[in-house]
Amino acid sequence: MTVLALTGGVGGAKLALGLTSVLSPEDLVFLVNTGDDFTHLGLHISPDVDTLMYTLSELANRDQGWGRENESWNFMESLEALGGETWFQLGDRDLALHHYRTQQLAEGLTLSEVTSDIAQKLGIKFRVLPMSDESVRTEVDTTSGRLSFQYYFVREKCEPEVSAIHYSCAADASLNPHLLLNDIHAVVICPSNPYLSVDPMLTIPELRTFLASTDTPVVAVTPIVKGLALKGPTAKLMAELGVQATATNVAKHYKGLINGFVLDETDAELRDSIESLGVRVSLSQTIMRTMEDRVELARNVLQFTESLR
Amino acid sequence: MTVLALTGGVGGAKLALGLTSVLSPEDLVFLVNTGDDFTHLGLHISPDVDTLMYTLSELANRDQGWGRENESWNFMESLEALGGETWFQLGDRDLALHHYRTQQLAEGLTLSEVTSDIAQKLGIKFRVLPMSDESVRTEVDTTSGRLSFQYYFVREKCEPEVSAIHYSCAADASLNPHLLLNDIHAVVICPSNPYLSVDPMLTIPELRTFLASTDTPVVAVTPIVKGLALKGPTAKLMAELGVQATATNVAKHYKGLINGFVLDETDAELRDSIESLGVRVSLSQTIMRTMEDRVELARNVLQFTESLR
Repeated sequence: MTVLALTGGVGGAKLALGLTSVLSPEDLVFLVNTGDDFTHLGLHISPDVDTLMYTLSELANRDQGWGRENESWNFMESLEALGGETWFQLGDRDLALHHYRTQQLAEGLTLSEVTSDIAQKLGIKFRVLPMSDESVRTEVDTTSGRLSFQYYFVREKCEPEVSAIHYSCAADASLNPHLLLNDIHAVVICPSNPYLSVDPMLTIPELRTFLASTDTPVVAVTPIVKGLALKGPTAKLMAELGVQATATNVAKHYKGLINGFVLDETDAELRDSIESLGVRVSLSQTIMRTMEDRVELARNVLQFTESLR
Repeated sequence: MTVLALTGGVGGAKLALGLTSVLSPEDLVFLVNTGDDFTHLGLHISPDVDTLMYTLSELANRDQGWGRENESWNFMESLEALGGETWFQLGDRDLALHHYRTQQLAEGLTLSEVTSDIAQKLGIKFRVLPMSDESVRTEVDTTSGRLSFQYYFVREKCEPEVSAIHYSCAADASLNPHLLLNDIHAVVICPSNPYLSVDPMLTIPELRTFLASTDTPVVAVTPIVKGLALKGPTAKLMAELGVQATATNVAKHYKGLINGFVLDETDAELRDSIESLGVRVSLSQTIMRTMEDRVELARNVLQFTESLR
C-alpha cells in the first residue's frame, strides 16, 4: 500500500512532513516539482526538491519556509562586492548542496540518483523523487514579457501580471523512472500552487494519463482558504488568469484527475459546488501552523483517501 | 620607472605589501606565480594571486597568512555532511572569489582580465598580473609518486619526500601579455619559495631570457634566515633536493639572473660566499613581523636596487 504525494515547495512540504509522521518509509513516496529548477551561477538549483529535503530532515528554516536553519550569507555578501548576481539569495550551507548536486550531475548521475544520494546523507528515509530526470522549465508570460520561473518568482517577486504559463518541456518529459505507478494505491496532491507547482507534474503525459485512468483514490488538499492563498502568489495568479480564487475553482482545475477534495472547514459552504463536479469532499482544518496541525491534516487526508476506495 | 616584483604567496605578499607603501601604483607591477593554480570542486583556484590580493586589500587573515579575515566555514561543513571533498578548505567568503573567477573564465575572459577586474573591485590600485594566461601546473615527484602541487602542499602537508619538481607547462607558456618588459627598470624577487613559487615564473622562457640579459637591477630577497625558512617548506625541500638550506644556496640558485641579493643581517657571515658568485649583497632585517618591518625592508630593497644601477 504505497501513497504517492505530489508536492511543490513550502506549502506542500508542510503536509509532506505530516505524512511522514503517519506513514512508514516503504508506504510513502514523494514526487516533486522540478519546473522551478534552474541553472544559476553555474549551479543546478532544485528549489522544491530542496525545500522538501530540508523540511523532512529538519534542516529547514521554519520562519522563512525555505533555505536552511542556522544559515550564513557570507558567500553572497562577498559575491556582491565582486559585482556578481545576487538577486537569488543562496546561503553558505545551502550552496554546498547545489554545488554537490551540480558536480554529481556533471559526473553523469541523473537528478534522481543525486537526489536519492543527498536525501540519504541528510538522513531522510523516505523516497524523494524529482518529477523527471529531464530538464523541465516552467515559463510565465507576463506584462514584462516571457520570464523563466525564478525570474518571475524571485527576481520580479511575482509582480508582473501573468497571462499564461508554459510547461512546454514537461509535455515532452518522461516521468521519473523510479516511480512505479503499479505500486501506487493512493495519490495525495499536497496544498501547493496548482498552476506553478502541481501543473508541471500533471503535464507529464505518463502521470496525467495514470491519474485520469486509475481507480485508486486521488485526493487534492486545497491551497486556498476563504479565497486566500495560505502561501505564495496563488490567489493573485488565479485572478490574473481570470479565475476567481476559490477552493471550488481549484477543484475544477483538477477535474477529471481527482476523486476527492479536502476543503477547509471554514469553506464548508463550497461543498455542494465541488461535489457537483463529481468530486467527493472532506472538511478539515487545513491551515498548518504547528507540527500537530500537519500530522492531524495528514491523518484526515489519509482517512478520507481510504474512504474513497 | 617601473619596478617588477615577482611573488608567490604568503612570504612574498608581505614584502609586496611593504612595496605598495613606498611606490605609487604606476611605478610597481606584480607578477604572481600561478604554478599552484588548480581546478578543485569545479572552481579555478589561484592561491598565490588570491593571497596577494587579499593582502593588498587588507582582507587577508593575518594570523594564518592565507584566506580571509572574518571568514566562516559553513559551506565546507555542509559539503562534508554530503560526502564532498574537504581536504582543501575554502571559506564562505573566499569561495565567492573562486566562483566569480570561474564563471568569468567560462565566459571567455583571460585570467589576467579576471584578476584585474577582481583586484579593482577589491579596491587594489596596483597591477596584479598572473605570470601567464595559460594553464601552468607545478608537479612534484615524491616518495608517494608524482603529485600535483596542491595535493603535495595541502593534502599531503608537504610530508612526502621530494625528488624533483616539474614545471613542464611553464616551459611552454607565454608570459602575461600585459607585462611590458621594456618599461621595467628594476626587478625584485620577493622572499617566496625559490623552487615552488619563483621557479615556475623563471621557467617561462620570455621572463628568464629578460632577466638573464637585462642590464636593469634584479634583486632577490632571501627567504632563508639562519638556515631556516621563514614560512613554509623551503628548508625541508632544499634538504630533500640535496641542497643545504642556506641563503648562499638560494643566491646560487638565482645565479645568472640576479645582480643583487638581500641577506638577513644575522647571516652576515655569508656575504663573501654570495659576492664570490658575482652578486652584490645588502644586509637588512628581513623578518617581517609588523607592517613597519614590511615597509622598512621594502625601502632597503629599493635603495639597494637603485645602488646597482
